[in-house]
Amino acid sequence: MDSLEIDRLASEISDAILRQFCSQKARTIVDAGADRVATNADMTKVDPAIAALIDHTILKPDASREEVLKVCAEARQFNFASVCVNPYWIPLVAAELHGTPVKVCTVVGFPLGATSTAAKVCETENTVRAGAQEVDMVINVGALKSCDHETVRNDIQSVAEAAHRGGAILKVILETALLTDEEKAIACTLCKMAGADFVKTSTGFAKQGATAHDIALMRKIVGPEMGVKASGGIRTFEDLKTMTDAGASRIGASASVKIVEAANR
Amino acid sequence: MDSLEIDRLASEISDAILRQFCSQKARTIVDAGADRVATNADMTKVDPAIAALIDHTILKPDASREEVLKVCAEARQFNFASVCVNPYWIPLVAAELHGTPVKVCTVVGFPLGATSTAAKVCETENTVRAGAQEVDMVINVGALKSCDHETVRNDIQSVAEAAHRGGAILKVILETALLTDEEKAIACTLCKMAGADFVKTSTGFAKQGATAHDIALMRKIVGPEMGVKASGGIRTFEDLKTMTDAGASRIGASASVKIVEAANR
Repeated sequence: MDSLEIDRLASEISDAILRQFCSQKARTIVDAGADRVATNADMTKVDPAIAALIDHTILKPDASREEVLKVCAEARQFNFASVCVNPYWIPLVAAELHGTPVKVCTVVGFPLGATSTAAKVCETENTVRAGAQEVDMVINVGALKSCDHETVRNDIQSVAEAAHRGGAILKVILETALLTDEEKAIACTLCKMAGADFVKTSTGFAKQGATAHDIALMRKIVGPEMGVKASGGIRTFEDLKTMTDAGASRIGASASVKIVEAANR
Repeated sequence: MDSLEIDRLASEISDAILRQFCSQKARTIVDAGADRVATNADMTKVDPAIAALIDHTILKPDASREEVLKVCAEARQFNFASVCVNPYWIPLVAAELHGTPVKVCTVVGFPLGATSTAAKVCETENTVRAGAQEVDMVINVGALKSCDHETVRNDIQSVAEAAHRGGAILKVILETALLTDEEKAIACTLCKMAGADFVKTSTGFAKQGATAHDIALMRKIVGPEMGVKASGGIRTFEDLKTMTDAGASRIGASASVKIVEAANR
């Protein structure tokens, strides 16, 4: 191997490390001319299995470009499962995460779930076209409350088909805070029948988020094959542990960095 | 005029009164066979100019069919400006309000405003096709916060064009609780440039709703030609008066019946 090949190899390895691990700050250093970067000491101490559970999430309506970029940099640094943003931000996030294992996640019919199926399908098609690999939709809570179960199922199935056509997976938010246990069980059954990949507890915009009780109930109904995502109010490593112990296979959180750092201690 | 013609005329007049004024209860009586109805005494005492200011609103995600029907019946009884619902309910509301002067109003990109322009346009086209005559969209707050004013303007203009193509008017929700006064002024200017028909304060899902200060500021920026809608937290006739005194030409409320009844006392 001559010195040119060694240089090229070193450059490729450095790039790969950069894509996988580097923070926005490190990237700036590299962009400014550095050809080697030391990986962040904090990051190497983080349990990758914990980080891989987390959808690193920023869904507040007034999130700025700068805040979304920060979330992407953190996701690259810690290898979170995904970055979850509102649809407007997908092109930016897809560009920021390109070449990393971190997925682009978005939300549809969010956070009320009360738009038409046609609008949800159209939004899903647009989001997957823009680069979303995971879609978190909200069920039609009002139709469920009105016992119009066929509408609820068709709504989910139409969005699931649109997501799958675009190569994305579908998580379905029940907004458990608004439902009785019976309605949660029915909603999980309809999600399973409709071909969804995950059931998910909450939008984070209702009066309550995930509870261990709800996660256990949802896991019981959907069985081991489907994913169960706990979201809303998960702020500590202890919260995450409570949810995974109850059966959650994915966690939605904004305090993701704090959680993985705590997991390490 | 023979007795047949008199009967037909009486029937037509009765139907007209029914369409304009009757409550769900009275309609039930007529459906059961009554061929004359007395108009509701309470209703005749309500100032029609006050009722005509109000978009009678139900936007909670768990609103049931029964609750939406109740809102429609109240709107028919009091001749509110419109019934404002999430898009899923438009076909039902359009059928319930058919033949009355009460408009069908809905929301787009609601309540976060952070979906893509393509999704907002698609949702708008679907809502006007389903019967919406007034569309209340939410601006892209995050783009405004990021000083991406061209994006904000294009977003509004695209939705305005879609609404107008379908014969509907467009109100643009700024979500004032999230904005500085400078941002509110910029947003109003962009709404005006983009061809919107109204500016509107709030979704009702943020930490604060309409204030007299915001209404006065918005009216100052948009001038007398555009509409200004106050919404969020308007629960009494005094609240309504405060808003109209400050320059509001439309009011969004859920407590509409209580408001018009209080106006009467």
